[in-house]
Amino acid sequence: MHNITARKNFAVAIAKEAGSLALEYFATRDTLVIDQKGAQDWVSEADRNVETFIRQKIVNSFPDDGIYGEEHAEKAGSSGFDWVIDPIDGTTNFVNGIPAWTIVLAGVSDNQTQIGVIFEPNVGETYVAVRGEGATLNGHAMQVASSVELASGTVSIGYSNRVEASKVIPVITALIERGALYHRNASGALSLAYVAAGRLLGYIEEHMNAWDCLAGQLMIAEAGGEIEDQDADRMIRDGGRVIAGTPAVFETLKMICDDAWNE
Amino acid sequence: MHNITARKNFAVAIAKEAGSLALEYFATRDTLVIDQKGAQDWVSEADRNVETFIRQKIVNSFPDDGIYGEEHAEKAGSSGFDWVIDPIDGTTNFVNGIPAWTIVLAGVSDNQTQIGVIFEPNVGETYVAVRGEGATLNGHAMQVASSVELASGTVSIGYSNRVEASKVIPVITALIERGALYHRNASGALSLAYVAAGRLLGYIEEHMNAWDCLAGQLMIAEAGGEIEDQDADRMIRDGGRVIAGTPAVFETLKMICDDAWNE
Repeated sequence: MHNITARKNFAVAIAKEAGSLALEYFATRDTLVIDQKGAQDWVSEADRNVETFIRQKIVNSFPDDGIYGEEHAEKAGSSGFDWVIDPIDGTTNFVNGIPAWTIVLAGVSDNQTQIGVIFEPNVGETYVAVRGEGATLNGHAMQVASSVELASGTVSIGYSNRVEASKVIPVITALIERGALYHRNASGALSLAYVAAGRLLGYIEEHMNAWDCLAGQLMIAEAGGEIEDQDADRMIRDGGRVIAGTPAVFETLKMICDDAWNE
Repeated sequence: MHNITARKNFAVAIAKEAGSLALEYFATRDTLVIDQKGAQDWVSEADRNVETFIRQKIVNSFPDDGIYGEEHAEKAGSSGFDWVIDPIDGTTNFVNGIPAWTIVLAGVSDNQTQIGVIFEPNVGETYVAVRGEGATLNGHAMQVASSVELASGTVSIGYSNRVEASKVIPVITALIERGALYHRNASGALSLAYVAAGRLLGYIEEHMNAWDCLAGQLMIAEAGGEIEDQDADRMIRDGGRVIAGTPAVFETLKMICDDAWNE
């Protein structure tokens, strides 16, 4: 079978190296070439070059693994283990100078996310999860904020122009009517990691791509939170909705989203 | 008259010292005593003790200046110069472990903010403005993002349970209908500083207290942005609405807020 421990250690090391590389680009971002992929959807040479760096490392160490990344074409694998990577999650923050963006690697086999690594280089936080083995932040076990009720907490509400603008409004409305605060820091992976670390109560977004969400969803589940049961391979193909939260708030979040998105 | 340069240099030095003290509390936040002031309104011994630290430094260096802070009673002054301080802006982030909070000092005389200092200790960013002398980030001149249109940018929408929940919804709706993205990172002062630094296009909140907004508003004005003309002394007494942004988006933000808040 796939050596999960070796791959996890590899992913942590590569995420940190990629983070150092990205920090160099961030420090000189005034000179970056930035292209627009769509409305409010940006990519810079930093995204492309950091992804190329990560891909090369994977090819060197695990040549038979598949690779799916945000910025380059997929590489089919033969090992049955696939990497799903976002070189810089939070590109809008990155190109505008907001120090809230992350390097994301997820490892998938048997239709399930097995490994999730999110590295935040600006403050040096490394979030790691392995299926069945728990989740850690800088080596310490993470737990979701189980004892906080919705009216005393904050939920992150992701949004992109891939979905209808009007559908995010009833979600925000329903949350503040229940006394919760909304949050959006423009890095979905970082926000999911915050939920796993007990810093936010939940995360909601009508459509995320696999490289943005698989790692963070595994972290939340391994930190005692709840996520929806999804086929990882289908998420890689199409992306999908993301609802995740503490056990105390998850069903309420799910109900709010079903009401808002399914009509 | 008041020596503005001396007071500015003092404020920068004190903000950094206070930031170091706050970082020590942040590292050991599991042991903090946290009290609830109201719905979703928290205070910790870190807030109180950092404010006490700043107050003592002001009393030592400028004994005749007035002091208005978030956590302790006002100290009337006789010099005509008042300090308005938030020891930790973003207390919710602080107590939950999110590294996005700031130390804020504003200096007021003649009903106008003369000095604004915002220090973000987690990534080490120091934002400074002096009326008529421009604004800097870590010593480099700041400029708002003048060339970005609303449909290609992000606006931070602050919210607290001091206002009616329903009134924030039309603001978010109007912004995303115009193609803008919304943002809320739970530190109003930090978000205002981001506007001054060209990282966000604007900031909107129906009610802010003076310690949260005076420093950031001055920064935005001094970095080429627009703010509403407000009496600083009245803001100290009652707080007020905050609308700030780049010249290209300010009038639109104002119109959106007038529509949402004045009915």
